[in-house]
Amino acid sequence: MTIAPLPQRPLTRADTQSLDAADVLAPLRQRFELPEGINYLDGNSLGALPKGVAERVERAIREEWGQGLIRSWNDADWYPAPLRVGQTIARLIGAQGHEVVVCDSTSVNLYKVLVAALRLRPRRRIVVCERGNFPTDAYIVNSVAELMKVDVIYADPDQVPAAIEAAGHELAVVQLTHVHYKSGQLYDMAALTARTQALGAVVIWDLAHSAGVIDLQLSALRVDFAVGCGYKYLNGGPGAPAYVYVREDHLSEIRQPLQGWHGHKRPFEFSHDYEPHPGIDQMLVGTASQLGLIAFEAALQAYEGVELAQVRAKSMALGDLFVRLVDERLAGFGFGLASPREAARRGSQVSLTHEQGYAIMQALIARGVIGDFRAPDILRFGFAPLYVRHVDLWDAIEALRNIMHSGQWREPRFAQRKAVT
Amino acid sequence: MTIAPLPQRPLTRADTQSLDAADVLAPLRQRFELPEGINYLDGNSLGALPKGVAERVERAIREEWGQGLIRSWNDADWYPAPLRVGQTIARLIGAQGHEVVVCDSTSVNLYKVLVAALRLRPRRRIVVCERGNFPTDAYIVNSVAELMKVDVIYADPDQVPAAIEAAGHELAVVQLTHVHYKSGQLYDMAALTARTQALGAVVIWDLAHSAGVIDLQLSALRVDFAVGCGYKYLNGGPGAPAYVYVREDHLSEIRQPLQGWHGHKRPFEFSHDYEPHPGIDQMLVGTASQLGLIAFEAALQAYEGVELAQVRAKSMALGDLFVRLVDERLAGFGFGLASPREAARRGSQVSLTHEQGYAIMQALIARGVIGDFRAPDILRFGFAPLYVRHVDLWDAIEALRNIMHSGQWREPRFAQRKAVT
Repeated sequence: MTIAPLPQRPLTRADTQSLDAADVLAPLRQRFELPEGINYLDGNSLGALPKGVAERVERAIREEWGQGLIRSWNDADWYPAPLRVGQTIARLIGAQGHEVVVCDSTSVNLYKVLVAALRLRPRRRIVVCERGNFPTDAYIVNSVAELMKVDVIYADPDQVPAAIEAAGHELAVVQLTHVHYKSGQLYDMAALTARTQALGAVVIWDLAHSAGVIDLQLSALRVDFAVGCGYKYLNGGPGAPAYVYVREDHLSEIRQPLQGWHGHKRPFEFSHDYEPHPGIDQMLVGTASQLGLIAFEAALQAYEGVELAQVRAKSMALGDLFVRLVDERLAGFGFGLASPREAARRGSQVSLTHEQGYAIMQALIARGVIGDFRAPDILRFGFAPLYVRHVDLWDAIEALRNIMHSGQWREPRFAQRKAVT
Repeated sequence: MTIAPLPQRPLTRADTQSLDAADVLAPLRQRFELPEGINYLDGNSLGALPKGVAERVERAIREEWGQGLIRSWNDADWYPAPLRVGQTIARLIGAQGHEVVVCDSTSVNLYKVLVAALRLRPRRRIVVCERGNFPTDAYIVNSVAELMKVDVIYADPDQVPAAIEAAGHELAVVQLTHVHYKSGQLYDMAALTARTQALGAVVIWDLAHSAGVIDLQLSALRVDFAVGCGYKYLNGGPGAPAYVYVREDHLSEIRQPLQGWHGHKRPFEFSHDYEPHPGIDQMLVGTASQLGLIAFEAALQAYEGVELAQVRAKSMALGDLFVRLVDERLAGFGFGLASPREAARRGSQVSLTHEQGYAIMQALIARGVIGDFRAPDILRFGFAPLYVRHVDLWDAIEALRNIMHSGQWREPRFAQRKAVT
């Protein structure tokens, strides 16, 4: 994808429309049901609804469940769905089809792989994580550390490499989230994976904010384990099932603790002793959430034929455009940039800081521009390259500019906190 | 509900129709979408589709997800759904609304409460379970026992009380499934709970085959913990989310190991340290599976206004009728009774044994009578009292009789094993 260089002069709305006209991914927007009058920059929290999902789920309910009943576990291929959807995701994250399975939540999957990883390195006692990572990762790591009696070192993002070196041959596991949920900052997955493994440890990447927007190459980098969620850029729907990746050579040597019947080698023998499935199926636990899987599978058709390298290129261009528009059009309003300026160090979001961030975001949402707020002062804007246009960023910045100019964010209704922020 | 005594002479189809005519629960069948020509006796594996579910889920997808997008976590009350659906289930299992939450799978929930229960009794080292229980329970118990270094005693069903006594003051936890998945045998929940607690231990009941068909009284019996699944008699749909019950006084003293952000006291503060929610919310882990929850909630309307004591009475009557019809009409064909003869010792299923059980069940399913098979030789027939009629049991037995008379089960097509049996 070649993009014409942007003019040096301050940009206009027409410039952003020209970028859309030249965008080879622009037709993908037609794959989504987007509400009229909404400028949706929160696909990093809940992806938009792809076309076809509602029809597919209705058929699953009325025909497969309603008419097929229990027979649909065979006849409608419900049983292999976790593996089948895993194969589709594998392509998007640069893994092999038999290394990924869809199940449970990201937190539960992290618990499984963390115990499994620590069991691979029983004589090493240190786990290195990022302080300030998405909290559920820290909560799960702390819980596992207590049960397995290992120590957790929390390092600030730029201190992670030093913490890894300091742990040295005591290092068992490095657990990081590839793209930071607040700042959008991107770790160097290749370098950190290689260095962790050189020290004899294993790495677990949380791909929550990477999958679907970055051309991940888990196999090429020989990443040990990864987990991620289905409902952000992958558009799987609210609370879509998560996925877990295990590098193929680990499959024969790990043991995960949530050993349920669907992870058994022969689940329908109902045998008393647990014998893990030799494949990625061993990461399954209980009966798979079929409606969630079916919706997720239908949603993933939005990525059919899409090259992640092109998605990443557009994502970087969108981020650069947003940063430039912030510089050009929001100067003097008290916004700070919480994300890296360089696209190569950033995921598919740009976060701003503002003392009055909460109220400003509510005012923006009231105008139909949807981003989100993360305490204490972060306004997050996520760019889902499959459906976000360049002109959307212009319009979002323009709305922000109007809110700041008019002081509209001061209206009392925008100060009221909601249950989910 | 008064049911006229059945005649002493061999029953006729008309007798079973008379029972239906007198059945006060008969109108509930109208709450379900049942396929034409199917006699469904497998609601203990996957409950039938209640009316209204497809419409509710379609609205959730098209309007709440598609139009509302991220705003629906507040505006469509997605966030409180696990608690709200938990409250509905609480009534069905005789618990208080704030003691039940819907999340994850039964296996994952068992893992949580088992670790939590063992932490309540740190100086006791024995867990008593049933040998031959549904395998996932044993797999999870064994995994937790290894991590927490306790011993598991597996006792045959009739030896469970003796095993509890033998463990004595070493007993930490008794974990049992109330109704056995194969035999339908029912434990005496009151006696076993009381005796376990008298020894200073805690009890965990798996209600997979009880909820929705037995008038459970968890609060009255002061049961410590319980888990159960949504997709059997509760009709929540394939892979519906499971639920977990924690007695209210335990909520302030337990710690479960899958500590994820949705179990945090203030999840949207995104704080580094985990602080469990003081309520049942602490059992939540990751983002809730909304489509599954919404389907489950809509499905539970089938139980609206239904008294479980009446459901249990009908369930017992159905079981007694089935056993009598087996005696009267299937004698000499080699069937054995794998379930207790007394209704009071049986859940809502009757299981038969037969050397050729697999092929016989396939032949039966081919005739539209759906039960299921459990290795090595069990034919299971589950009676969901909300939609199974007395005449359905007559017709099922008649189909079995024809299959055995004709030898139709010998057709090669019925010997072929399916992926899910």
